[in-house]
Amino acid sequence: MDHDRLLDLLLEAATLKRMPRTGWGMRGVPHVESVAEHSFGTAFVALALAQTVAAELGHEQGASFDVEQVLIMALLHDLAEVRLTDLPVSAVRLIPPDVKSQAEAAAISDLLAPLPAAGQLAALWQAFEAGSSPEGRLVRDADKLEMIVQCLRYELAGCRGLDEFWQAMDGRRWHYDLSAALYRRLKAMRPGADG
Amino acid sequence: MDHDRLLDLLLEAATLKRMPRTGWGMRGVPHVESVAEHSFGTAFVALALAQTVAAELGHEQGASFDVEQVLIMALLHDLAEVRLTDLPVSAVRLIPPDVKSQAEAAAISDLLAPLPAAGQLAALWQAFEAGSSPEGRLVRDADKLEMIVQCLRYELAGCRGLDEFWQAMDGRRWHYDLSAALYRRLKAMRPGADG
Amino acid sequence: MDHDRLLDLLLEAATLKRMPRTGWGMRGVPHVESVAEHSFGTAFVALALAQTVAAELGHEQGASFDVEQVLIMALLHDLAEVRLTDLPVSAVRLIPPDVKSQAEAAAISDLLAPLPAAGQLAALWQAFEAGSSPEGRLVRDADKLEMIVQCLRYELAGCRGLDEFWQAMDGRRWHYDLSAALYRRLKAMRPGADG
Amino acid sequence: MDHDRLLDLLLEAATLKRMPRTGWGMRGVPHVESVAEHSFGTAFVALALAQTVAAELGHEQGASFDVEQVLIMALLHDLAEVRLTDLPVSAVRLIPPDVKSQAEAAAISDLLAPLPAAGQLAALWQAFEAGSSPEGRLVRDADKLEMIVQCLRYELAGCRGLDEFWQAMDGRRWHYDLSAALYRRLKAMRPGADG
Amino acid sequence: MDHDRLLDLLLEAATLKRMPRTGWGMRGVPHVESVAEHSFGTAFVALALAQTVAAELGHEQGASFDVEQVLIMALLHDLAEVRLTDLPVSAVRLIPPDVKSQAEAAAISDLLAPLPAAGQLAALWQAFEAGSSPEGRLVRDADKLEMIVQCLRYELAGCRGLDEFWQAMDGRRWHYDLSAALYRRLKAMRPGADG
Amino acid sequence: MDHDRLLDLLLEAATLKRMPRTGWGMRGVPHVESVAEHSFGTAFVALALAQTVAAELGHEQGASFDVEQVLIMALLHDLAEVRLTDLPVSAVRLIPPDVKSQAEAAAISDLLAPLPAAGQLAALWQAFEAGSSPEGRLVRDADKLEMIVQCLRYELAGCRGLDEFWQAMDGRRWHYDLSAALYRRLKAMRPGADG
Repeated sequence: MDHDRLLDLLLEAATLKRMPRTGWGMRGVPHVESVAEHSFGTAFVALALAQTVAAELGHEQGASFDVEQVLIMALLHDLAEVRLTDLPVSAVRLIPPDVKSQAEAAAISDLLAPLPAAGQLAALWQAFEAGSSPEGRLVRDADKLEMIVQCLRYELAGCRGLDEFWQAMDGRRWHYDLSAALYRRLKAMRPGADG
Repeated sequence: MDHDRLLDLLLEAATLKRMPRTGWGMRGVPHVESVAEHSFGTAFVALALAQTVAAELGHEQGASFDVEQVLIMALLHDLAEVRLTDLPVSAVRLIPPDVKSQAEAAAISDLLAPLPAAGQLAALWQAFEAGSSPEGRLVRDADKLEMIVQCLRYELAGCRGLDEFWQAMDGRRWHYDLSAALYRRLKAMRPGADG
Repeated sequence: MDHDRLLDLLLEAATLKRMPRTGWGMRGVPHVESVAEHSFGTAFVALALAQTVAAELGHEQGASFDVEQVLIMALLHDLAEVRLTDLPVSAVRLIPPDVKSQAEAAAISDLLAPLPAAGQLAALWQAFEAGSSPEGRLVRDADKLEMIVQCLRYELAGCRGLDEFWQAMDGRRWHYDLSAALYRRLKAMRPGADG
Repeated sequence: MDHDRLLDLLLEAATLKRMPRTGWGMRGVPHVESVAEHSFGTAFVALALAQTVAAELGHEQGASFDVEQVLIMALLHDLAEVRLTDLPVSAVRLIPPDVKSQAEAAAISDLLAPLPAAGQLAALWQAFEAGSSPEGRLVRDADKLEMIVQCLRYELAGCRGLDEFWQAMDGRRWHYDLSAALYRRLKAMRPGADG
Repeated sequence: MDHDRLLDLLLEAATLKRMPRTGWGMRGVPHVESVAEHSFGTAFVALALAQTVAAELGHEQGASFDVEQVLIMALLHDLAEVRLTDLPVSAVRLIPPDVKSQAEAAAISDLLAPLPAAGQLAALWQAFEAGSSPEGRLVRDADKLEMIVQCLRYELAGCRGLDEFWQAMDGRRWHYDLSAALYRRLKAMRPGADG
Repeated sequence: MDHDRLLDLLLEAATLKRMPRTGWGMRGVPHVESVAEHSFGTAFVALALAQTVAAELGHEQGASFDVEQVLIMALLHDLAEVRLTDLPVSAVRLIPPDVKSQAEAAAISDLLAPLPAAGQLAALWQAFEAGSSPEGRLVRDADKLEMIVQCLRYELAGCRGLDEFWQAMDGRRWHYDLSAALYRRLKAMRPGADG
């Protein structure tokens, strides 16, 4: 094993701590979370979702998840941003989707190369991107729920001007009923909502 | 399932994004990482360690890890700090270890209660605390390696006055040879070191 | 006199400038004051209280204070946090009160050792902790009033989600009528209050 | 004139104040300048360059500049980042240059639409992008000199790990001799340089 | 030309990036813009104003501006603050106006000395200060409109306690009708206003 | 007593928490202390100085201090900055000293008016300003020593470019031998010094 390349990866991954989630700052949020913080939150939400969906539906209904996959997907889902940065909606509108996908895939592939199971990890990232497995779809829901949890926290602390984030989610087709239910409850907790 | 209690947990867990790793600020580091950022980093380092240790030793030697357990431990290892805050070494010296352990265990137990598999998660946290399983020991190494990765990043960016962090690790007995090897390489990368 | 030990104290005390008042950040306040800032505020409030209480009641009624003691108590009242950090309510609930007291007393004693009148200073700190003198009780009121002044400033600037701080004070038995009166006026100044 | 669309532009342009220059943060710089700050700096450097180049060469040699054009270019040169964000070198490597150019041109065109002379402004931006006029080339130099001025300020204040920025400029072909001369002087002012 | 003095100016001008607009912080705004950011904004607003005023009135009515002068004034209008800092209203009340003017003029004169056209630039700054030319009056309006744009952005993001800034502008005699019209529209966009 | 005016004072005094010590930021220090933090530090240093000077010289030599006066002076010494802001050396050079003194005195007088002993407090502030009492001279030393303690902390943490602060103190005539001795020790602790 080439330890120096492994350490390069660990040092570069820590850059996510200094990569702001740009959408918040653009709307004037004073204290902007980092991509690393969002990734932690996504993994935590995904773990909670996986356990609760499975418990609510019962394992016989095929609602059990490979939690190892879920957590790896959550940790890696924004790893490409260590090089690409967090592109807000206004940027995504200006860049063709396939260009963004290819850039992310190239970054992921290059970043993970020092790891023994790089290919498997990249495949998990792809399954997240495509929502092509139950685990991938679960983490896609977790990614958005985590954003809304943070958005609500900002609003409960006094931030305003974040309606767009909720509006974007109002039209979302959640992959799991639990996600939709949690979203509705979070929305009811907004300041001024009829909770 | 009680979704409101689940959401309380998700909202409270996000507090780790605003919980500073106090040791850095005390020594004058200007931009202090959060506990959430460190938790993300620990999970990432733990994943890399688990794969690399297994690959280097070969699975037949029993060096394979339950990665689901590894990642859960990494995500949860500092969760109690959402209530207890990050106590620096100077505080730990002033509080009896068993008081701290009991406070953490109580916090963990109370926090995880809304999750279906709360008991299993708490048991994993205990195995991390006690270093009583290969996975727990691996995450203990990852926790410290991640700290050193961040410390090195601070130093490469110009921060000084962080020798204590290295000194504390110089005397550490790492649980895995890979951890020790990575630590030595990181130390050689310090500004001014004979790399 | 050992000047090096004195300088160690001065350098360490300055760490309070980098010690955040954790309760604010946990609730999403973007710009969190430091313990040093709160200590300055407490000393200032205590000075104002001491003069005003004395003037309102008249000196013959025993309402005169030893202002030197008042100001020393205010400056030192959170000095132990230089090592213990600022433990929020959620942490205090998890640590037995006597453990916290002993930890603080040990920190204070060790910190003040380089000063000629260390014993007298530690005794003043104890009188503050116990509220066992008129000066100690006055500074206890000042400590809480200062928190509420800061809380109101955060709210006037748009911060929300800080009701707990007011609720905790609603049940407080203030040591001086002036403190209670000032608290009521501050509460009437809250945004949305019937001022 | 449609004042509301004009105000939308003014409000959106102010977003550049909250758009970090990402390259600095990725390398651990604690206090990261905004795109608005860099744009101010570029305009100031460009003004100084224009005057000094003209004075050194003498107007008869065609070294006079249309300063109105120079300043407009400097103010607008990063305006597209209000939507695209500041893409660091690592991102630029992953996105085809023409995709980035088209995205920027589309953003500029859409942003400037509320202004009476939108077409002329967009043409100036294009001349900057292409370096197709003396003014455009001057502002291209100013853009890079300003980055190096800021880089040197970071280094004089203790930041480290910024060698890449200098290395990238070492190979640069400056459009004006003055730019090259100033760059050499700035480099000689680096901490540790043989000034 | 003396390049070292020119570089000293460029390095010192960059200090405006670290000079906070003090009025915001005093009222509790968490994320305070810098003077450099305000200067960028002022230049951008001034450019938009100059074009729009000219277009609305028609050039034959003498409403055309020397845009070079406008932009130079906007860039330089707060340059003296690199040495004097941004004095808030409460400070301006305590310092005789002529003392402040002389201090600013002395700073401007000394700062600009390394530039070939220092005298002309200082004269433009004077015309801004005195509002003694159409361009100077336009930039005076732009300076205040930019402040109000930023104020509105803070309020849309949840900041409160900024009424003073609006009240100070309510009584203002704007130099151009467009400025007054834009101010009224901005005021109608305040949260809670009858927009 | 007029409690509302008293509360106005307490609320305004808290503004010192948001008033940066401008000199640090101008030189690129990333994390800039507030005037409130410096005021706390000055009071703490003054207390330590008062006790140590008295102990070293012995009370019979007239080296005893009125500690109440010392601490009041330290708390109030920068209170006028709540309105005037912290003027750095470059600003002080541009404003006639008597203008600054009068502005400060007017601010102090107006600010302290709600306090019963306003006149006595203002007299103490004057004694500090003029260095016209042993206590005033002691706090003048403490004010500068605290600045140097903070400067050293910045340097120990990696900040550079702060030589001016030391040079300004090298020529200082300290009022007390202890201050001079402590300054020499602090200087010997600078990174790179022959400690």
